[in-house]
Amino acid sequence: MAQTQIRPEVLIVTPPGSFTYFESDFTQKFNVLKAWESPLPLDQYVTTHAQSVQALICHAYTPVNADLLQLLPALKLVASPSTGADYVDKAECRRRGVAVTNAGDAYSEDVADIAVGLFIDVHRKISAADSYVRRGLWSSKGDYPLGSKIGGKRVGIVGLGSIGYEVAKRLEAFGCKISYNSRSERPSLSYPFYSNVCELAANTDALIICCALTDQTHHMINKEVLSALGREGVIVNVGRGAVIDEKELVKCLVNREIRGAGLDVFEKEPHIPKELVEMDNVVLSPHKAVFTLESFKRGSEVLIANLEAFFSNKPLVTPAMDE
Amino acid sequence: MAQTQIRPEVLIVTPPGSFTYFESDFTQKFNVLKAWESPLPLDQYVTTHAQSVQALICHAYTPVNADLLQLLPALKLVASPSTGADYVDKAECRRRGVAVTNAGDAYSEDVADIAVGLFIDVHRKISAADSYVRRGLWSSKGDYPLGSKIGGKRVGIVGLGSIGYEVAKRLEAFGCKISYNSRSERPSLSYPFYSNVCELAANTDALIICCALTDQTHHMINKEVLSALGREGVIVNVGRGAVIDEKELVKCLVNREIRGAGLDVFEKEPHIPKELVEMDNVVLSPHKAVFTLESFKRGSEVLIANLEAFFSNKPLVTPAMDE
Repeated sequence: MAQTQIRPEVLIVTPPGSFTYFESDFTQKFNVLKAWESPLPLDQYVTTHAQSVQALICHAYTPVNADLLQLLPALKLVASPSTGADYVDKAECRRRGVAVTNAGDAYSEDVADIAVGLFIDVHRKISAADSYVRRGLWSSKGDYPLGSKIGGKRVGIVGLGSIGYEVAKRLEAFGCKISYNSRSERPSLSYPFYSNVCELAANTDALIICCALTDQTHHMINKEVLSALGREGVIVNVGRGAVIDEKELVKCLVNREIRGAGLDVFEKEPHIPKELVEMDNVVLSPHKAVFTLESFKRGSEVLIANLEAFFSNKPLVTPAMDE
Repeated sequence: MAQTQIRPEVLIVTPPGSFTYFESDFTQKFNVLKAWESPLPLDQYVTTHAQSVQALICHAYTPVNADLLQLLPALKLVASPSTGADYVDKAECRRRGVAVTNAGDAYSEDVADIAVGLFIDVHRKISAADSYVRRGLWSSKGDYPLGSKIGGKRVGIVGLGSIGYEVAKRLEAFGCKISYNSRSERPSLSYPFYSNVCELAANTDALIICCALTDQTHHMINKEVLSALGREGVIVNVGRGAVIDEKELVKCLVNREIRGAGLDVFEKEPHIPKELVEMDNVVLSPHKAVFTLESFKRGSEVLIANLEAFFSNKPLVTPAMDE
């Protein structure tokens, strides 16, 4: 008979994807408090467990803000399943002495794959042509319009962290010329660095947004940057919706002031500006850059590793950097 | 005043895309006989010019078969705008002493880009998810199902010519493991070679068809190969539709005996088996692997170079190999 162990308590308000698919990996190790299964209103449920909960797994749809943190005076760790933990009020966590962990680079390859997939799709009109074929228009109306060649394109990567680097590596194999904007230059890499994102846009055919959402990057891609990118320019966003001023992006797309866009993220997910749904020069992806079983598995491993480190007083595996 | 020159006569029955977009490049150098603009039935139009026409530009929708060749006794050159000139009866051309040229590797990069785009799309469900978002299902039904990671996939390339090589180069940057089947081994490359396509399928997670259509490759991808590929297997075809036994492929897809497919080519283009249109695990592309303005420009340059070489008795630039 297995020995009964007291499992550390972990609160989950809304379950992240990795928990949904790998629940037993969590419940074997932790006493998981499932707020979403309780009939109680969230604040009442949380208050019931307030004195004992030291660790919380969060989710993009339930922001970890000052109100929630106030209900949990014993909290010492917020473990985010995402790379960009922008829905966690890190300043408030810091003030309360609550540590934050993220997914580290668990998802970087998958996110880079979606970025390149969207990049090819926008230039070569894959989704739009698939829809054209399915509607029976190939046989009745003839060939679908031409796309634009990938090779030789000058690609500007905004945010050359682990995701941006993986994007660069892939697109080099297609014959693209990489340059980048980032918080700081990476001298170990030979790609040209632009400290100003507007200058980067002016000197490239496409921007791929791979950075985190912070006060500094909020609406960083504004009208000026989009104008600098120009009529033949393409934008791909696998970072966060609000890195782009979405209203200006939609205006530029509607007025054909840029060529097209591949968007995995939006400002008010899962709601999409209605104008985008009508356009065939955009590819719309439902924030699924990390949506593979392999990534969810890896993500749950990183979450569990952080929780185990926390409960055994070891250094956290992937503490969220000051972003 | 420009000197009047007698331009060599070139017959076009149906115009290829490169002609449509770059017509003036052709008409400046050649006296182009546009059969499709004539009110006469094709055989009458052709017969009218039978004694003078030495060169013909062809198109996939108008096969250059024994019947057409018989009407053109003076013909000495068939210039195909495609890489795979399978709609030209090469044996009959050879018998009549008619040379055939193709596009060489003018389109290899664009075709490889579409192959990789389809490969990513099938694994990461980009087109299907785009349609899901456009139908408003993200906000009403929640997240789109998971896809499968690209990195680590074992990819079998069928036909390691210039297209297959470009596909391999790109997918290596994603962390895929490449092996291949081809008419002969390429000792200069380190990828594992399988002389038997069924064995290749049994040892890979995906097949990417990049070979030409010949008597040897017709229906080469049959039920046995698809079974060897297996339930988690993916197939991408940028070669020709009839390299795959399409009925068997559709059966396997319907019965989920393979995971999915990305198809740029079909057996009876532009007609698509109706079962495919209902499925969300396939990506349907309207034979547009070479459809970029850059490729059409390059294709027209190669066509013109072959015609100029022919009319000045120089060696043809890209004679069609015995495929």
